[in-house]
Amino acid sequence: MNFSRINGRGRVLTRVRRNLAVSISAGTALLLCSATFSMSQSATLPIMPLPSDVQTHDGRQVLSPHFSYFTSGARDERIDRAVARTLRQVEERSGLLFDRTPEGKFVAAADGKAAALLIDCRAASAAIPQLGEDESYTLEISTAQTVLRAPTTLGVLRGLATWTQLVKSDRSGWFLPALTMRDAPHFGWRGLLIDVARHWQPIDVIKRNLDGMALVKLNVLHLHLTEDQGFRIESKTHPKLHELGSDGLYFTQKQIREIIAYAAERGIRVVPEFDMPGHATSWVVGYPNLASAPGPYAIERRWGVFDPVLDPTNEDVYKLLEAFLGEMAALFPDPYLHIGGDENNGKQWTANAKIQEFIREKNLKDNGGLHAYFNRRLLDILQKNGKKLVGWDEILHPDLPKDAVVQSWRGAAGLAAASKAGHNVILSNGYYIDLIQPAREHYAIDPLPAGNTLTAEEQARVLGGEATMWAEWVGPETIDSRIWPRTAAIAERLWSPREVKDKADMYRRLDYVSRRLDEIGLQHLRYREPMLRTYAGDAAQNEDLAVLRELLTLLEPVKGYRRNHAMNDAGPSQFIPLTGLPDLAGPDAPATRAFAEAAEPVIFEKGNPSELRAAFEHWRRVAARLQDCAASGRLGPRSGEVASIGQQLAELAEIGQEVVNAAESSSSETHGAAWRDQIIEKLDKNAGSAPVVEFPAANSLKLLAAAVSERPRQGEFAPAAWRKHLKALAFPKKSK
Amino acid sequence: MNFSRINGRGRVLTRVRRNLAVSISAGTALLLCSATFSMSQSATLPIMPLPSDVQTHDGRQVLSPHFSYFTSGARDERIDRAVARTLRQVEERSGLLFDRTPEGKFVAAADGKAAALLIDCRAASAAIPQLGEDESYTLEISTAQTVLRAPTTLGVLRGLATWTQLVKSDRSGWFLPALTMRDAPHFGWRGLLIDVARHWQPIDVIKRNLDGMALVKLNVLHLHLTEDQGFRIESKTHPKLHELGSDGLYFTQKQIREIIAYAAERGIRVVPEFDMPGHATSWVVGYPNLASAPGPYAIERRWGVFDPVLDPTNEDVYKLLEAFLGEMAALFPDPYLHIGGDENNGKQWTANAKIQEFIREKNLKDNGGLHAYFNRRLLDILQKNGKKLVGWDEILHPDLPKDAVVQSWRGAAGLAAASKAGHNVILSNGYYIDLIQPAREHYAIDPLPAGNTLTAEEQARVLGGEATMWAEWVGPETIDSRIWPRTAAIAERLWSPREVKDKADMYRRLDYVSRRLDEIGLQHLRYREPMLRTYAGDAAQNEDLAVLRELLTLLEPVKGYRRNHAMNDAGPSQFIPLTGLPDLAGPDAPATRAFAEAAEPVIFEKGNPSELRAAFEHWRRVAARLQDCAASGRLGPRSGEVASIGQQLAELAEIGQEVVNAAESSSSETHGAAWRDQIIEKLDKNAGSAPVVEFPAANSLKLLAAAVSERPRQGEFAPAAWRKHLKALAFPKKSK
Repeated sequence: MNFSRINGRGRVLTRVRRNLAVSISAGTALLLCSATFSMSQSATLPIMPLPSDVQTHDGRQVLSPHFSYFTSGARDERIDRAVARTLRQVEERSGLLFDRTPEGKFVAAADGKAAALLIDCRAASAAIPQLGEDESYTLEISTAQTVLRAPTTLGVLRGLATWTQLVKSDRSGWFLPALTMRDAPHFGWRGLLIDVARHWQPIDVIKRNLDGMALVKLNVLHLHLTEDQGFRIESKTHPKLHELGSDGLYFTQKQIREIIAYAAERGIRVVPEFDMPGHATSWVVGYPNLASAPGPYAIERRWGVFDPVLDPTNEDVYKLLEAFLGEMAALFPDPYLHIGGDENNGKQWTANAKIQEFIREKNLKDNGGLHAYFNRRLLDILQKNGKKLVGWDEILHPDLPKDAVVQSWRGAAGLAAASKAGHNVILSNGYYIDLIQPAREHYAIDPLPAGNTLTAEEQARVLGGEATMWAEWVGPETIDSRIWPRTAAIAERLWSPREVKDKADMYRRLDYVSRRLDEIGLQHLRYREPMLRTYAGDAAQNEDLAVLRELLTLLEPVKGYRRNHAMNDAGPSQFIPLTGLPDLAGPDAPATRAFAEAAEPVIFEKGNPSELRAAFEHWRRVAARLQDCAASGRLGPRSGEVASIGQQLAELAEIGQEVVNAAESSSSETHGAAWRDQIIEKLDKNAGSAPVVEFPAANSLKLLAAAVSERPRQGEFAPAAWRKHLKALAFPKKSK
Repeated sequence: MNFSRINGRGRVLTRVRRNLAVSISAGTALLLCSATFSMSQSATLPIMPLPSDVQTHDGRQVLSPHFSYFTSGARDERIDRAVARTLRQVEERSGLLFDRTPEGKFVAAADGKAAALLIDCRAASAAIPQLGEDESYTLEISTAQTVLRAPTTLGVLRGLATWTQLVKSDRSGWFLPALTMRDAPHFGWRGLLIDVARHWQPIDVIKRNLDGMALVKLNVLHLHLTEDQGFRIESKTHPKLHELGSDGLYFTQKQIREIIAYAAERGIRVVPEFDMPGHATSWVVGYPNLASAPGPYAIERRWGVFDPVLDPTNEDVYKLLEAFLGEMAALFPDPYLHIGGDENNGKQWTANAKIQEFIREKNLKDNGGLHAYFNRRLLDILQKNGKKLVGWDEILHPDLPKDAVVQSWRGAAGLAAASKAGHNVILSNGYYIDLIQPAREHYAIDPLPAGNTLTAEEQARVLGGEATMWAEWVGPETIDSRIWPRTAAIAERLWSPREVKDKADMYRRLDYVSRRLDEIGLQHLRYREPMLRTYAGDAAQNEDLAVLRELLTLLEPVKGYRRNHAMNDAGPSQFIPLTGLPDLAGPDAPATRAFAEAAEPVIFEKGNPSELRAAFEHWRRVAARLQDCAASGRLGPRSGEVASIGQQLAELAEIGQEVVNAAESSSSETHGAAWRDQIIEKLDKNAGSAPVVEFPAANSLKLLAAAVSERPRQGEFAPAAWRKHLKALAFPKKSK
């Protein structure tokens, strides 16, 4: 079999199917299976990311307790361990108990023919995964066995991640659908950034998220290790960095090695980030002389962009960095090392006469030039240690050497500019999962969208992307609920062919992968019930918990940076308990998603609003139950908050009713701009007055109000322009 | 204030109240509080274990964000850390954000008067807690502040564990009820044994359970580290012990030190157990020459009592033990070291001519004498290392030196015998939480019950007790659900005065402490939902999950060792996935408990059975829903099991109906012994046919059938004898 066509970056793809409806191939030689295997079950597969190419066949491979596997080709114990992990997961999910050897291992078959799972790995991957390694594989599942072939260990790992998602069941038992699959990634850099600095995330959080990443074929863990709010890694050369900068919450170097090994075992690279020269308060708590203004400094406890910045004119800074980065370069085997470089507000530099003098002396022009000077010095240090530099948008400067990689957080323009300037680039703009957008919005972002204007060479420099889990509002209990399952949609965008983009099908499959993530120990579903019990309190009854659960299908945390803004005066932000309504609530609340989908045709195509009317009825009932349970006093100190939310939901239903009535009324005269603005104002007041949670359905209602108010002018617009026009009216003051 | 009266073992108690109804002291000088503080709220306190003495007052200490504390007396940073842990828990529970210093610490008040929490600790405890240390404390909560006084750091920790349970809320906010409390433990050895050997339990399981232990004032973690199925501790002197005996699943010595420090921080001792000479298969995998029969050996994967036993006639055994126990004695600071000693079946010794010759030569009489010889040799090694020996019942032998401690797993007789023989003793019989008995049964077991016949001296040798979490059927996901909350009831038995024994009140408070345990991260409640989702499968609807949840209020795992017996042929037991119905189900299922309570007066006092009839109706409805959901096929491979359970429940309802009808019928002639035995047979068949789960309500029905059948003879019996008589009839073949 020739893999070369789908190798490497995987852009040369064969037989990519649009719309994911996987065809049923009737003419195979496979045996027909029992009648319970319905056509609808095989219509699409419950897997994520979708593969490049798949054909399902009639029939199934039944999983029996007498399961054995066989590996041919390269010997690699990582494969045995990955098989053992996979089979144990299947056992725990299914209740099956697979055969064991006397030593307690899963059984290796005598030969490939006798094996339920035959794995053929052409060559063992290096001990540490490398950017650009071949991750392709093929799966051939017949009634007799699964054959998984891959050119590398990495490909085998990716194939096993697919295989475990294919395991399904019906009344008769557990099985895999017969199929033929070829698969390879679209992009080679598919990352998840975890900010362990703003809120500390201990090693078990990292490990379980590595398990999740492996399941959806992400291959880069980007650890954001330093921030104003914490220096989260042990330095043996400069121990005051972590000792004074972390409240004692940091990774030891031994733990880092453990993380790297755990990741490598799953085919995942670990790229560390040490953010400089800004975002550096925690550095200068222990070493105040490195800052650009006199100390002393304390760990920052709030969120935002702060002044402390390293002093690029101070040779002591480079002495520390030579030692520290040397130490880190030895600790982290990956050739890429991220130096941050973002959001330096320049205030300390501007206020420091000595620094300004230095800029003039060295002809650096301005603070930007000084930043570039600093980066060149950093680059020297990294090169001496055999590392390539990665940094955020702001490092882009004409003087930046071409082998520096730019990670774009500010948008497509920055990405294109960096790529045109000759840099490899990674996209993160659009993948900021901390901002609580629905999965469909992230899913729509393609690092290389159809119709982009980059040359082939420039396109080749787009390595991929990274979801970014910034940690202002996540602790170890809630972080999984912000990462998953939405990051699986981003993983699919980065792995699957560009043509895989049906949002409804993505959401359908997201529900499956969410369950698989739940089963392997991610906390995104299970964190909520204990937190809800605590929120509701000792006196709450089942009915109270039930209505709060209903509420959480309608309510979401506020989006963007609104929670920062709302909480800025509450006290030291880092210590705010993450156990309130915005923590219980999550992105993509189910009823919210359903409402947006039902509203879409009503807004843009004058569809039938009966589903919306039913939703208003539902809201009214939920609102009444919330009021009752708040009035009962059983929710103790939460009663006031719940009453107010209930009140808002009731008003939302009233406003919704008014907007839909207007949409159906024949007279448009009374529903002009003034009416629309009044609706928008009422919605802002009533769906946004709880400062940190919102009812996103209000957005659909705003759009509908805009559509009603502009209905007479619809003829003037093409469909896309009409959509844009309504959005502009519905969200007039929307700031980014 | 004089603490001497309640010092030490704490048996001298003042003003112990029976029945837990805490009196309201009206005549205090405290200010009256707002009208929302009702009398009923203060009637009993939601805490466990109950203190020796408490008086509640009108009024409350309101918790405000401006919280500060002050420590007087001995300086001990453990107290600051314990306060920080406690306050953080309160923050996460309440959503309050307490003030912080610029360094991010909770605020220390300028003086005692200004503090919301004043802690007076007379003397800092030793770094490692010791048996017999003073753990007493007093709490004085007024509207102004809490004053916590204790003679030792340990007492402060116990007082904080009470304080955090006293925090409650109503509509107006968070507060503590005003009260005066004196408290001290009944027994000084209050332990939890965790078997980390049969199923491996990683360090995070241990840590969260230490948190739970601290909350309910348990003070000994007994780590059962070696078993036939695993050698779970790193040995540097004999690394083949853990390398070949553990599948790689063991505590490193560094982790052990981490556990000891974590425990000490919470006032908990760590006593290690190395089980010898039996239960030793995992020892001899790496060192087969130490066994009493030729090897090779493999790690045992099944449950039971196995033959491999160390050879006491082999000097190499003592060489290894000298090195290994020396190593362990240095690692574990506690003066007590447990050498197991239980369940040596003697087969290898009997079959070995050389060993039998040794017994004759040394005049050891028999295998028992050889075991005593082995123990003497062990004792020498321990004494050389400054350790005291602890072992199970079987080590009791006339030659056993008096300073060896006997842990009784076989019963009150063994406990008394060992105490009379001059040994200190610990009770575990009756506290076997792995056997899935309801909490009330463990709660009824007192190491020193009223009316015991021990002399004062013998009584003084009863140090306390230990709950034992044997790990045949628990993994890291389920172990908390077997330990908690029932172990809190055992903790109360060991801490609180003997007179605290009202079961209904125990259960009422157990619900509160269960929530507090949930809040600090124990998994006993939260483990179930994810497992239920997996059990129900991808196609399950909310209604399916709902009825399965209902089922789990009625169903429990089988008791005693029945699961071992039922599963003995299923394959290597250690690998059976612990994700099935008996894992989902737990002890003390709520509806089961309610049914038993409702049945009690009907059985023994001819009470009104209307509640029972209502239960049968409920069972019928649940059964019908189970059948429906099984028939739908949505439960996939679980459909058959669920259908069968539904069928059993329906039949249980029919039988119940028949028994209650008989109880109400005026004719007793048709309901004699034959009828009763037929009912019992039907119940055995229909409530016990799922081999690993059962409907415990069947037991109440058996008793009721027995009562009906013997009704004409009731006059012949005194009440207690009548009860005993019915039990004998209802459970005729009941084996221990």
